[in-house]
Amino acid sequence: MSVPPIAHPVNSSHRSRLAPLALPERLLLGPGPSNADPVVLDALARPPIGHLDPAYVALMGEVQELLRYAWQTDNRLTLPMSGTGSAAMEATLANTVERGDTVLVAVKGYFGLRLADMASRYGAHVVTISCPWGEAFSLEALEAALDEHRPAILAIVHAETSTGVCQPMEGIGDLCRRHGTLLLLDTVTSLGAVPVHLDAWGVDMAYSCSQKGLSCPPGLGPFTMGPRAEAKLASRGGKVPNWYLDVSLLNQYWGSDRVYHHTAPVNMNFGIREALRLLADEGLEQAWQRHRANAERLWSGLERLGLELHVAEPLRLPSLTTVRIPQGVDGKAFSQHLLNSHGIEVGGGLGELAGRIWRIGLMGYNSRQENVDRLLNLFEQELPAFRSSTPVAAAVA
Amino acid sequence: MSVPPIAHPVNSSHRSRLAPLALPERLLLGPGPSNADPVVLDALARPPIGHLDPAYVALMGEVQELLRYAWQTDNRLTLPMSGTGSAAMEATLANTVERGDTVLVAVKGYFGLRLADMASRYGAHVVTISCPWGEAFSLEALEAALDEHRPAILAIVHAETSTGVCQPMEGIGDLCRRHGTLLLLDTVTSLGAVPVHLDAWGVDMAYSCSQKGLSCPPGLGPFTMGPRAEAKLASRGGKVPNWYLDVSLLNQYWGSDRVYHHTAPVNMNFGIREALRLLADEGLEQAWQRHRANAERLWSGLERLGLELHVAEPLRLPSLTTVRIPQGVDGKAFSQHLLNSHGIEVGGGLGELAGRIWRIGLMGYNSRQENVDRLLNLFEQELPAFRSSTPVAAAVA
Repeated sequence: MSVPPIAHPVNSSHRSRLAPLALPERLLLGPGPSNADPVVLDALARPPIGHLDPAYVALMGEVQELLRYAWQTDNRLTLPMSGTGSAAMEATLANTVERGDTVLVAVKGYFGLRLADMASRYGAHVVTISCPWGEAFSLEALEAALDEHRPAILAIVHAETSTGVCQPMEGIGDLCRRHGTLLLLDTVTSLGAVPVHLDAWGVDMAYSCSQKGLSCPPGLGPFTMGPRAEAKLASRGGKVPNWYLDVSLLNQYWGSDRVYHHTAPVNMNFGIREALRLLADEGLEQAWQRHRANAERLWSGLERLGLELHVAEPLRLPSLTTVRIPQGVDGKAFSQHLLNSHGIEVGGGLGELAGRIWRIGLMGYNSRQENVDRLLNLFEQELPAFRSSTPVAAAVA
Repeated sequence: MSVPPIAHPVNSSHRSRLAPLALPERLLLGPGPSNADPVVLDALARPPIGHLDPAYVALMGEVQELLRYAWQTDNRLTLPMSGTGSAAMEATLANTVERGDTVLVAVKGYFGLRLADMASRYGAHVVTISCPWGEAFSLEALEAALDEHRPAILAIVHAETSTGVCQPMEGIGDLCRRHGTLLLLDTVTSLGAVPVHLDAWGVDMAYSCSQKGLSCPPGLGPFTMGPRAEAKLASRGGKVPNWYLDVSLLNQYWGSDRVYHHTAPVNMNFGIREALRLLADEGLEQAWQRHRANAERLWSGLERLGLELHVAEPLRLPSLTTVRIPQGVDGKAFSQHLLNSHGIEVGGGLGELAGRIWRIGLMGYNSRQENVDRLLNLFEQELPAFRSSTPVAAAVA
């Protein structure tokens, strides 16, 4: 045997010659990703093992069990989707929505709009109710909408990353049960950072991400589904219209059978295993209290500087704080200055809050006092230079 | 402000107390994942940066350009999907199939069946043609099927991971153009390992994975789409029925606008950037020849031991070799012995080849002479102990 000739000449026009990877150092205090715990980063760099290796199968069980702890749920179907949080978001809808189902989306920010867009792609009859970006829904508003629309699913965001609002959850699960409605909850910016009690709240489906409260890089989308949602999946006519996110197939791999579905992103799962282990070592109550204490330090420090927070205190999300950009300040110029001169990322506004707020995340590994103090110090020392010299004119404009 | 009381007691029944991650050392000589290059693993462990950070945006462009080189294509829409190879596979169909479109799938193994399943979930009228698992399609067979079914899309696997067959590609693109058919190609087990010339072959859509020829862990799904496929996407009625994989949205992030779609798996992209850089440094011709030379060394070594290869030499895939399990040998017991006693993973058969073959991968970083020699030595020294002592009886059964 000999090497056969290569049938076509190789085109080298796209053969960039690059130097080895060099990355800037960043303190990520925006809406996510957050910095990962160094223990988690170390786990990512382990040599991969096979996705059917007994050692990997044992790790899968560990990840599932610790996700149940983090979410406070007994749900059997709890697993990390092999994609980012948006994939897990889509998985909740793809598996349970059938054509013509009414899906009620309570929109109080950007991610509610995304839920509505996704649900429509699965043939749902999407109904939305909204409240101002920076507020939460009352039980009465939700009850009125459930009465009127009798939806198969109510989708709502627990921690709205675009506004910094934490939706009060008490009573919503009971309302949904009385209406025969499944409750779908976005916990992307709350898991690991803010109290989440899926089972006590009567949540039927939830999703999250790896890169915020869990202190792992982005790349996995925790997903969970309770018995009422499982029953809807089991009774659907025809296959789930999304192969990659089909929980009935995934359950054969993540359940007891370990039937091959797709090649798991094993290194990302090494990372989330360590991230969840560290969270369990710290303990949920301690992690929640740490996020709360550091957020309160940030809030009072910003207010001491005369800055206005976008969300009223009772609804404020400890993991993500929204700060109004003062009139006469070029908010984008200041955040670019923080990035370029200090290596600190803070976020800008999304959607209708674009240009109006900064978004400051204190999530997971990054929720620590020294980060709060460093950022407050920069706001105090360096923000004044970004105020327009003609603040009155700017205020009028 | 004070920390509010936690409304529900924390349930610690799922709070496993785990030791730090400990993983076995494996030489992955199965169908994938393969071992990753240590340079790539090191990149995975870098602290994440934001998905809109200028440094990350620059890296995205580098990854796209080097994917074009690896695939030998000028396609503008070339990017890694934020999921595994199966997500990229689904992306090709989700974006281009409209309800009622005829999709012709040329099935010569397990992954052809998967393409057919996926296409059906998007409302395609799926037609399959098949050939025995271990053979390839002739141009004549494909032409007859194109004539008969006039499909919108012909989907075919270049490198069938379940059988070890490399489909000859010359002429298929011309046939498809003459029939007004888009050519969709699975290059999961060929990219970076076996000659692939997407543009010269007239391929309109392709996908691959990160964990084989590219020497990166699993978690990203390279995806590419040429102008004819783009035109079909642009002319479709209504939205793509899959939000996460919607290329019209993804293109706003990966194209010039950098509009936020989802939070990218940044660390995995650090890894694939380094993997592609190393491939470009080596050069495609050199990488292909290395895979070929090591595969030939394996093939002749196995034949010298009296083992039979499942695929005829002209169709054999250098990256994945299928070996028939001799009669009287417990194939699964031998592969478990290799894993447990030597830390070497080789694969078993899938689908109709389950229990009949071993699958040996020599992919990317693992395609090296010392791995071939180590495995051949184990087959020579330790396989005889797994032969039944009553081979004649076994042969009769």
